[in-house]
Amino acid sequence: MDKPYAIGIDMGGTNTAFGVVDRRGEILFQGAISTLVKNKNENYVKWNDYVAALGKAINNLIAENKLEGMIIGIGMGVPNGNMNEGTIENAANIPWAKGVVVPLTKKMEEITGLPCKLTNDANAAAMGEMAYGAAKGMKDFIEITLGTGVGSGIVSNGQLVIGHDGFAGELGHVRVIRENGRVCGCGRTGCLETYTSATGVARTAREYLELNPERESVLRNIQHRPITSKDVFEAAIKGDNTAIDVFNFTGKILGEAFCDFIAFSSPKAFILFGGLATAGDLLIDPVKKAMDENILFVYKGKTEVIMTKLNNDVAAILGASALAWE
Amino acid sequence: MDKPYAIGIDMGGTNTAFGVVDRRGEILFQGAISTLVKNKNENYVKWNDYVAALGKAINNLIAENKLEGMIIGIGMGVPNGNMNEGTIENAANIPWAKGVVVPLTKKMEEITGLPCKLTNDANAAAMGEMAYGAAKGMKDFIEITLGTGVGSGIVSNGQLVIGHDGFAGELGHVRVIRENGRVCGCGRTGCLETYTSATGVARTAREYLELNPERESVLRNIQHRPITSKDVFEAAIKGDNTAIDVFNFTGKILGEAFCDFIAFSSPKAFILFGGLATAGDLLIDPVKKAMDENILFVYKGKTEVIMTKLNNDVAAILGASALAWE
Repeated sequence: MDKPYAIGIDMGGTNTAFGVVDRRGEILFQGAISTLVKNKNENYVKWNDYVAALGKAINNLIAENKLEGMIIGIGMGVPNGNMNEGTIENAANIPWAKGVVVPLTKKMEEITGLPCKLTNDANAAAMGEMAYGAAKGMKDFIEITLGTGVGSGIVSNGQLVIGHDGFAGELGHVRVIRENGRVCGCGRTGCLETYTSATGVARTAREYLELNPERESVLRNIQHRPITSKDVFEAAIKGDNTAIDVFNFTGKILGEAFCDFIAFSSPKAFILFGGLATAGDLLIDPVKKAMDENILFVYKGKTEVIMTKLNNDVAAILGASALAWE
Repeated sequence: MDKPYAIGIDMGGTNTAFGVVDRRGEILFQGAISTLVKNKNENYVKWNDYVAALGKAINNLIAENKLEGMIIGIGMGVPNGNMNEGTIENAANIPWAKGVVVPLTKKMEEITGLPCKLTNDANAAAMGEMAYGAAKGMKDFIEITLGTGVGSGIVSNGQLVIGHDGFAGELGHVRVIRENGRVCGCGRTGCLETYTSATGVARTAREYLELNPERESVLRNIQHRPITSKDVFEAAIKGDNTAIDVFNFTGKILGEAFCDFIAFSSPKAFILFGGLATAGDLLIDPVKKAMDENILFVYKGKTEVIMTKLNNDVAAILGASALAWE
């Protein structure tokens, strides 16, 4: 009999959540450990402390729920994941992963006795979408994650585009504005994510308010704290023209970038995921307009822009688990 | 015994050349027919006249050289080729293919009794490079064809990136300059090929001469005909500073675009092919410089820029034949 369950592990900067998932994408059992558990008032000093704790937690989850022999494998979504090597490479935001290459899948396989794969968050989301979500039955699509940054998981001919080094798919760092573009956290300028991330939307709003000091906007009522993309969304819903302009600008930049991505892999759909994607048509309508106005004739009208169908609360676990079915 | 030969067919706007190729990329027999053969002083009126003539020519080639049972299949490089469907779709430059969908592989299989595949020129070049040329052993690379236009064949995880509609890989139409870019033949502005094709190089040279009327250049000696990219190459070889500046500008635009392409599929190499690629280091050096200055840190120093290793005279036949081995 085919093994009916996969384990998905979502490793974040503070917490690591995991779950047992069936083939329809239902989560049966869940658990979590801290990514930075303190031992004797100290953070994990070395990565093997973390991996030992995680492996033990997974073994316990299996034993407690009597799932021995029923798990096909483990998939993990991790920061700076090299899918080719199964390693975490120099993940600067996690103290025990800084400046080292962590052989995560190898160690997890040793501890659990199960096949283990890993990739980054956006690739995991794309795999989850293909297994359980909006990309069921699609062989060519691009998952775009719109959060603090912009990430991407590219699927071509039914396979993730991984690249020779395991790090393909950083579409948030395509430079969409080459002259006088915004400074990006990567040290360069004009990257897509400086405009179309949640952070980018807030930045655009602040710029628009400064550049048009006479124009009324409910966003001016926000004092004593920085404007967020959620503020801009709520203002736009209320009909605030500045906020609507911000979404139109954001959608235009994103839609123009999508035209270039289509010239690369001609996907059937872009699937939007993450906090900013909840803006829905406020964002999608100007994206579609920009695509329609800028697309190369051969691709015209062929590519959809749709929302994720993964439940956001558990999407990362689902996405990671999808790796195990492959 | 494995069948030792493949047939490659290179369909151009005026001539269709074909050859029998072995697994090492040696061409044993060659032939050609006109793509626009005249019957009773008329061009082919319908596509089936052409396909019948081509099928007959291939059957003759096989019979004359006693190759029955020794051919694994036929690969074709064609304009507007849809690899998913095996069709030529609305190829505007060929009278009998204008406004129609030609079921080329299906018909050729009927006539020859051999499996038949097709794709566009740049994809065929990429396949040829992987089978016999500079990409032997590579699973992730991008072939860039620099001719009258700019084409591309993208290989990810050992497979061509084809897209949901069969038309992926039009990197010449990525818009690298969004504001006040050059007008492109596709009807849009700022496309990569308006800057980095042979035509784009000539255009840059004319702009540079006009913008700097006082600056001496051997290119000013060219009168009574338009400057070509070959003129610019020859002037640069002689040390003409304007011509060298043209290549530096071209390489900068191309290298910056390569950085964006790397963020997509993280190839091990870009392989340059076509007329302009013969400029060699004149072009490659500024490409590498721009890549080094603009690349996202995670990709730094990982991707090579190299020249094709396919003999240009027969590269298109070789590339097409490589499809048949798949």
